[in-house]
Amino acid sequence: MNDDRYQRGLKNFKEITGEIGEKFIQNLNEISPDFSRYLIEYPFGDIYDRPGLDVKRRELVTLSALAALGYAEPEVKAHIKVALNAGVTREEIIELFIQISVYAGFPAAINALLSAKEVFKELDGKK
Amino acid sequence: MNDDRYQRGLKNFKEITGEIGEKFIQNLNEISPDFSRYLIEYPFGDIYDRPGLDVKRRELVTLSALAALGYAEPEVKAHIKVALNAGVTREEIIELFIQISVYAGFPAAINALLSAKEVFKELDGKK
Amino acid sequence: MNDDRYQRGLKNFKEITGEIGEKFIQNLNEISPDFSRYLIEYPFGDIYDRPGLDVKRRELVTLSALAALGYAEPEVKAHIKVALNAGVTREEIIELFIQISVYAGFPAAINALLSAKEVFKELDGKK
Amino acid sequence: MNDDRYQRGLKNFKEITGEIGEKFIQNLNEISPDFSRYLIEYPFGDIYDRPGLDVKRRELVTLSALAALGYAEPEVKAHIKVALNAGVTREEIIELFIQISVYAGFPAAINALLSAKEVFKELDGKK
Amino acid sequence: MNDDRYQRGLKNFKEITGEIGEKFIQNLNEISPDFSRYLIEYPFGDIYDRPGLDVKRRELVTLSALAALGYAEPEVKAHIKVALNAGVTREEIIELFIQISVYAGFPAAINALLSAKEVFKELDGKK
Amino acid sequence: MNDDRYQRGLKNFKEITGEIGEKFIQNLNEISPDFSRYLIEYPFGDIYDRPGLDVKRRELVTLSALAALGYAEPEVKAHIKVALNAGVTREEIIELFIQISVYAGFPAAINALLSAKEVFKELDGKK
Repeated sequence: MNDDRYQRGLKNFKEITGEIGEKFIQNLNEISPDFSRYLIEYPFGDIYDRPGLDVKRRELVTLSALAALGYAEPEVKAHIKVALNAGVTREEIIELFIQISVYAGFPAAINALLSAKEVFKELDGKK
Repeated sequence: MNDDRYQRGLKNFKEITGEIGEKFIQNLNEISPDFSRYLIEYPFGDIYDRPGLDVKRRELVTLSALAALGYAEPEVKAHIKVALNAGVTREEIIELFIQISVYAGFPAAINALLSAKEVFKELDGKK
Repeated sequence: MNDDRYQRGLKNFKEITGEIGEKFIQNLNEISPDFSRYLIEYPFGDIYDRPGLDVKRRELVTLSALAALGYAEPEVKAHIKVALNAGVTREEIIELFIQISVYAGFPAAINALLSAKEVFKELDGKK
Repeated sequence: MNDDRYQRGLKNFKEITGEIGEKFIQNLNEISPDFSRYLIEYPFGDIYDRPGLDVKRRELVTLSALAALGYAEPEVKAHIKVALNAGVTREEIIELFIQISVYAGFPAAINALLSAKEVFKELDGKK
Repeated sequence: MNDDRYQRGLKNFKEITGEIGEKFIQNLNEISPDFSRYLIEYPFGDIYDRPGLDVKRRELVTLSALAALGYAEPEVKAHIKVALNAGVTREEIIELFIQISVYAGFPAAINALLSAKEVFKELDGKK
Repeated sequence: MNDDRYQRGLKNFKEITGEIGEKFIQNLNEISPDFSRYLIEYPFGDIYDRPGLDVKRRELVTLSALAALGYAEPEVKAHIKVALNAGVTREEIIELFIQISVYAGFPAAINALLSAKEVFKELDGKK
């Protein structure tokens, strides 16, 4: 049992992802509680716990990788919220996605920007 | 003629990429001088010239996207040097590539880390 | 005319994919009957007809490749049903998708697992 | 200011993409007018303005790249309309997507063909 | 036995790929003669045999897909030779790879252009 | 400290990968001992330790995912050896890579088959 690692991951996960994370884990639990645990343990107990990059820069890394993959729309949307939660600004997120056009092409950038548009609208509608 | 944009791009390109960039452009010129110009103009005259993210964070974005693509080994190696030139530390580069394992898998992360190892060795050998 | 090959492919296709396959081919026929024929002939007349791997292991190969591509959600969902039809268990499918997180990253694994969740729910609803 | 380049891009963009392009740019403007400008300037002011390949062949190139990426469904659909507008026939588009199965696999080809089916239906419904 | 299809594929393969193809098939035969046969039959007996696109345009499609994939360097190099053999000009190949930068990003375009440079040099050295 | 998990991972890693794994970890240690530890812990301490699929089938999954990614040549070669070590036959590996042509295209299949050819030759040369 790796209880320490799981507890550390859960604490990081809750702080970083807030309620978005909570719902997501409930959803994932219905198909594989084991995989939910790995998601808490490896990315959040191990990686996000490391001191080498602060959370804001980690979110830049994550959003860049996800946008470059092109197919990860649900994860792009979730991490836009997580990044905002971590203090990354809307302008920085847009800036980052514009830059992605150079490395992964205009379609990958467009898809990420239109995901950002949807997420921002959703967040503004909640106010 | 977009001379201003090209001149601005060339200035940024030289400052950011140093001698790595110069050799690369000479190489690319032999197959397509037009494409070399686009590379100066769009990524460096337009994108890297924008104020929304500083050069260090732009390099984090670039390295994350390149590592996630998996196939861009020559560009990963070139941008490791560019990132170091811009003040990103070796530790931050390693940190970023470790994080890529979560989003693009262990093979993408391993390939980027082994590229970093080669580049660091090459740079240490020059001293 | 390669009638033998087409007939062999059709027989395999029907046995392996059941009614999922039938609807799919009707759908595809509306845009390109030629391509439907190739789909019957090459994957099912040639590849799935080969003795080197049994159908269950072929479905593991297919689901792994599809999940690793990341963008093939409709095909992942269809082949989950086909795999179940071939005797692969739900537990094995989940297991396989968990493993994909190592090689293609957590987003690819998450997307495949959430597709599995949807398919399993749909199948349970039918009972 | 690169007004000439933007004006040239806008002229090409309007001619090539018609009303599809207009709506798309309005949509993109809501999240990033700067990126809309880059889209007009680089692909349409620079690339599509070059004499080396005519518009019909440029659309073959674009549709092939988009279909091979696998994740670019909205762009595949938009460029099917653009290609038809440029004089590429429905038969040529289907032909091209069938060929993609060889290089990017059957799922990429199937997704592109089913996108073509949807677009053709939509266009026929308008008549 | 689909002898007609194989013979038709072999004829097309020889005409289109010339001696590049011959060496390649010998190489592939050492690991899987069955797969060599499929390569002759499906892409060359079925797809390239179809009348809907001429060989020159089929090579544009192939090169675009291969360049967009990013990882297919050996196939890009082989098909540059095949395309030249089919009457596509060096300028058209360069033009096509420049355009790929828009859809798959600058690294994919750069890698394809540098492959073209190598192939052109090799061909010039032979003269 | 997750000593149990690391020890379990190391035991699995040694059994499954043999001397290939040992050299690889030494290589990776020179750039990031932390990442080496994660590689032991997550894929081998967590995933390969799970009972849901036996090692032979896990290697089928891994080789399929790696071949479908297209860019993971060093990992394909390493896992061919690991798969042979686990009792997968050469014929099954070839069979699997042939099947990949359907889902990820002929170039991905060709690259994997030529990697297999190289590895088999290397292994035969050692005898």
